[in-house]
Amino acid sequence: MANIYIVGAGLAKFGKRTESLVDVMCEAANAAIVDSGCNEFDAIYVGSMNPEEFVGEDNLSPKVNEKLGLVPVRSSRVETASSTGAATFEQAFLAVASGYFNCVLAIAGEKMTAVSTERASKILAEVLSPSERNCGATMPGLAAMITRRYIYDYKMTRDAMAAVAVKNHKNGSKNKYAHFQKEITVDDYYKSKIVADPLCLYDCAPISDGAAAVVISSNKGKVRVCGIGQGTDFVSVQDREQLTSFNATIIAAQRAYKMSGLSPGDMDFAEIHDAFTSFEIIGVEDVGLFEKGSGWKRTLEGETAIGGHLPINPSGGLKSRGHPVGASGLAQIVEMVWQLRGEAGANQVQAKRGITLSIGGFGDNNLVTILEKV
Amino acid sequence: MANIYIVGAGLAKFGKRTESLVDVMCEAANAAIVDSGCNEFDAIYVGSMNPEEFVGEDNLSPKVNEKLGLVPVRSSRVETASSTGAATFEQAFLAVASGYFNCVLAIAGEKMTAVSTERASKILAEVLSPSERNCGATMPGLAAMITRRYIYDYKMTRDAMAAVAVKNHKNGSKNKYAHFQKEITVDDYYKSKIVADPLCLYDCAPISDGAAAVVISSNKGKVRVCGIGQGTDFVSVQDREQLTSFNATIIAAQRAYKMSGLSPGDMDFAEIHDAFTSFEIIGVEDVGLFEKGSGWKRTLEGETAIGGHLPINPSGGLKSRGHPVGASGLAQIVEMVWQLRGEAGANQVQAKRGITLSIGGFGDNNLVTILEKV
Repeated sequence: MANIYIVGAGLAKFGKRTESLVDVMCEAANAAIVDSGCNEFDAIYVGSMNPEEFVGEDNLSPKVNEKLGLVPVRSSRVETASSTGAATFEQAFLAVASGYFNCVLAIAGEKMTAVSTERASKILAEVLSPSERNCGATMPGLAAMITRRYIYDYKMTRDAMAAVAVKNHKNGSKNKYAHFQKEITVDDYYKSKIVADPLCLYDCAPISDGAAAVVISSNKGKVRVCGIGQGTDFVSVQDREQLTSFNATIIAAQRAYKMSGLSPGDMDFAEIHDAFTSFEIIGVEDVGLFEKGSGWKRTLEGETAIGGHLPINPSGGLKSRGHPVGASGLAQIVEMVWQLRGEAGANQVQAKRGITLSIGGFGDNNLVTILEKV
Repeated sequence: MANIYIVGAGLAKFGKRTESLVDVMCEAANAAIVDSGCNEFDAIYVGSMNPEEFVGEDNLSPKVNEKLGLVPVRSSRVETASSTGAATFEQAFLAVASGYFNCVLAIAGEKMTAVSTERASKILAEVLSPSERNCGATMPGLAAMITRRYIYDYKMTRDAMAAVAVKNHKNGSKNKYAHFQKEITVDDYYKSKIVADPLCLYDCAPISDGAAAVVISSNKGKVRVCGIGQGTDFVSVQDREQLTSFNATIIAAQRAYKMSGLSPGDMDFAEIHDAFTSFEIIGVEDVGLFEKGSGWKRTLEGETAIGGHLPINPSGGLKSRGHPVGASGLAQIVEMVWQLRGEAGANQVQAKRGITLSIGGFGDNNLVTILEKV
């Protein structure tokens, strides 16, 4: 098993950005490059979910190289819908693990605000199964369905969903890279409009722009990559074995734990894909951090807050940091690097190891990454 | 240096297909799987340039897994514009080389005929630099410019371009997977309409549907991967050092030769990206098979025909086999596997080693792959 390290990390601020997608991605990349101290790269991995339709750009990888002044370095794009950032990291890791490359840059970004919210929703629905999409299925609609089933099976209250939103906004309020840097109250949560019953506005991550980048190397750094797992599931939700767990997450977590030789009990904190508040609760269970059906109680009890037994989304998560779809999976990893290096400022947690979960599509291509402080 | 093999290969017929993109890709994948005899895969790499805009599908990788019955195998999409198929192969190779995976499936496809030719041209232009695209640059327009410069610098005649088209159509006429299975004459060439002076219709590869797939493994097979090189260049053509060579190809070839320990003289045949006839001539020079400026003469002299000193595009090339953009780079590799195994039928060449060149975008992300018979 190769020892491979993250030797640099950077973010471009999430939110509504006026710059081009390539410019935002290069802002994150340059921050990671400076942080790493590396000046020669063997390959670049560029992640973006759908620059073709969000910003009308194809062939993103050499455009990023050109802007970074890194022609003629190898450059390829990776995409796995909303887990693209994590998959980009995985491919960069494998490239270093192959022994052919020593220093690789992974960059992931998305610019979603250049189109209308209606158009963005239509673009996002293209990740769904055609048969379900053509019957009117949307991301929030499907998320509402599984949330309702989870409520039915495990007696979750909306208070628990509110607790996720309030916690993540509180964490995000102290994260200078977050889209929303403001706290919300339980009252704000209940007053916000329903998007797809039982999901209200504060259950849903926003449409954002942003980018993240890391430098991966076989040279020793302060953060080691312990395990990466990826799992797929049927894109058609009707074909799945269960609704209240994502099988792709369970498989991805098994693979990541196996590769790392670690178990859920070894994890000190997590960044969990909370595109919807209920996804955080299902996610912490699927990666084995809490027993099935108990995630909502542990959240209500404050265990997942900074200072709690197992902090979840100290960055603010997708909910508050924002969710530029292609970027989120790598932004989780950047947060983890900063936490493990003790550089997370007001949101610092005490941790030797952490785990991320990034969900692709509607839970059909999920990645779990485990990192540790060296 | 790891010994890594191609243990299975398959194509779906190129041309105008009525099936969905996923179905066409799975047709190629199933052919490769049957050919390999493998029934367990550690990862799947799915290449497609722009399914979002050509067929309105995003999140292609788990959709392919679902259709192949290969849930929950890892699956990621790779994209480098028109060299996507070759980049998908490269990532699958690196994944096996990492030692984490033993058997990996690489699939690449595109379905372009569902949109109008006008719309397809607009989609294809998204790969260009925004500054040049916004001034009206198109793929054939830029290709015409560099062809004219090559004619000026090296005194190439249109007869040489006609010779490429006639040769490739002759080869394609005997390839049952080819989009165009018909010979053309020099007279046909000169009578075809001008697309962008000096390029006429028979200088240009068609808009096609199709897919290719291979199985890559560390288990010994009949074809070994000797070298893969990738190079990038400035997307803006105005920023390049020269017009009549693609620097990204020269770099990619250097890297592939270095990795393989081989040189151009070791190559017995080649599959060269002939999206335009002049690209084949520039390509054979850029990968070092012929001296700069001499490629057009060698072509006119018949050296690149099947039975000639160095057969180029025995498959019919992009010109005649067709050019479903994301698929072409991997289709070249499939042709090479069949040739090296002695299974190329009427188009069989005598070869122990071969080289492919796939061009991404307008020559800004190019890949060179070298394979040998075991």
